[in-house]
Amino acid sequence: MEEPFKSSAPALYRELQETIVKALEQIEGGGATFGRDQWTREDIGGGHGGGGDTRVLAGEVFEKAGVNFSEVEGKLPAEMSKKLVGEEREASFLATGLSLVIHPRSPMIPTVHANFRYLEVEGRKWFGGGTDLTPYALFEEDAEHFHQTLKGVCDSFDKSYYPRFKTWCDEYFYLPHRAEARGVGGLFFDYLGKDDPEKLASYARFQEAAGRSFLECYLPIVERRQSENFDEEDKKFQLQRRGRYVEFNLIYDRGTLFGLKTGGRTESILMSLPPEVNWDYDAFSNLREKDRELIDVVKKPREWV
Amino acid sequence: MEEPFKSSAPALYRELQETIVKALEQIEGGGATFGRDQWTREDIGGGHGGGGDTRVLAGEVFEKAGVNFSEVEGKLPAEMSKKLVGEEREASFLATGLSLVIHPRSPMIPTVHANFRYLEVEGRKWFGGGTDLTPYALFEEDAEHFHQTLKGVCDSFDKSYYPRFKTWCDEYFYLPHRAEARGVGGLFFDYLGKDDPEKLASYARFQEAAGRSFLECYLPIVERRQSENFDEEDKKFQLQRRGRYVEFNLIYDRGTLFGLKTGGRTESILMSLPPEVNWDYDAFSNLREKDRELIDVVKKPREWV
Repeated sequence: MEEPFKSSAPALYRELQETIVKALEQIEGGGATFGRDQWTREDIGGGHGGGGDTRVLAGEVFEKAGVNFSEVEGKLPAEMSKKLVGEEREASFLATGLSLVIHPRSPMIPTVHANFRYLEVEGRKWFGGGTDLTPYALFEEDAEHFHQTLKGVCDSFDKSYYPRFKTWCDEYFYLPHRAEARGVGGLFFDYLGKDDPEKLASYARFQEAAGRSFLECYLPIVERRQSENFDEEDKKFQLQRRGRYVEFNLIYDRGTLFGLKTGGRTESILMSLPPEVNWDYDAFSNLREKDRELIDVVKKPREWV
Repeated sequence: MEEPFKSSAPALYRELQETIVKALEQIEGGGATFGRDQWTREDIGGGHGGGGDTRVLAGEVFEKAGVNFSEVEGKLPAEMSKKLVGEEREASFLATGLSLVIHPRSPMIPTVHANFRYLEVEGRKWFGGGTDLTPYALFEEDAEHFHQTLKGVCDSFDKSYYPRFKTWCDEYFYLPHRAEARGVGGLFFDYLGKDDPEKLASYARFQEAAGRSFLECYLPIVERRQSENFDEEDKKFQLQRRGRYVEFNLIYDRGTLFGLKTGGRTESILMSLPPEVNWDYDAFSNLREKDRELIDVVKKPREWV
């Protein structure tokens, strides 16, 4: 990726989208394929506001997978401008990114989320993103593989990245009202380069490498768990745990709330929600030992590498 | 109800809870009965913070019904104090109320929510509450009956109440990101008596009458729709529409967010969420005529009486 990032970043995200879509379709084995919704957006200030390309699949392995590319521009609501540039007026912004959420059908395969994005607000520029894993059955080697792969990418840039972005992820994907993390974490980073523009090019390469490692992080887990047996209790637990996923996204997720408040495309934003979810009252009051272990892990984030 | 309301209000809400629980169990015909969870709460300021009595039923007619009584007290978080009493310190509060949500199994029977509450914050006292109906199939006479019954209660106090609280309800139970109301509305009122304490006793009687009319508002609809046939498409539509219910409660509902942020009991607050929910991508892109009509109604609130 080279400057200007406002043209190289969207090109990268489109390429990643294509690669990931193809890889997931291959796992579906020629059955289900991704649909495509290309959309444009009118900005809150009126006029052209960019748009996006939403790819969604409803398959056998992947019950619901969404891989969104977007490139939007316009004016920010005053309260957001204030937070980002310190002035209460409608600041101009440009945001482009790739955002994906994959909800597999089998409770043996974890849900995964990834996002890589580039922002410009009135001359300030930064990268953000990350990826995190939400299992419904605890396989320690899966969490270890996911984190080890991410650590490898981080370490090739800066040894401080992995511990910093791993902790940030544990803190970000957290549900205070449940006292639980969303899953077993991964990486989360934001505002990279915003206050140190001389490092922007290096951050650009870092988030590119993180994006390119996504399939290597996730696919080996899918392949390993695809033929794992499960029973009705495993499925029930998955459907209840998916409720926590919804709770996080709708109550706390900045990206979701930012999108909904800036007039983003609702269906593209909420494609992150699981296809089937249950909320039984006090569902976790009487857990099996193995489910209890998973809950213990999300209550107390672990070091996986 | 008589002053002091801090003792007569909880007595009313407990009585209403008992009456409603019994009536719903009767419809279940001796099968499913309500469970009971009595809980106490520690206040954010430390010390005893009151508690509640959560009654939940998982039945045949009512897939999930929660009827909560609570009576909590303590200190408000500073930001809430600022909003309610204009001073940024941890103001003392007392809140007691009845809150119920009923999710029937059949998509022919609407979901209903009702809440009646009394609050005291540093000498200021007020009543709030209301009830609203969320159908998954449009039967105009059901919406009319619901509204007509509520209008009757309102009119016996003040002819201005019904139009005012009906409009407030349409405005409150609204999802901007969907440009849809939650359902066909009902009544919503808040802060009654906060700035006109001389009217507090009259508001107390009004909300008592509204609470006592709940079964008359809802049960005739249940009885009328209980044996109505439905097909798989009706059920699918219900499960997707329930997703909107979750979106409203987790993104916008003040009561839910207030409860979760003041250290309320999570399971009692989130008992409002439907037992089974679906989010398919762009699920409403190809609706049947009758479902389209229902969506038209929630997009453009009607006058039902």
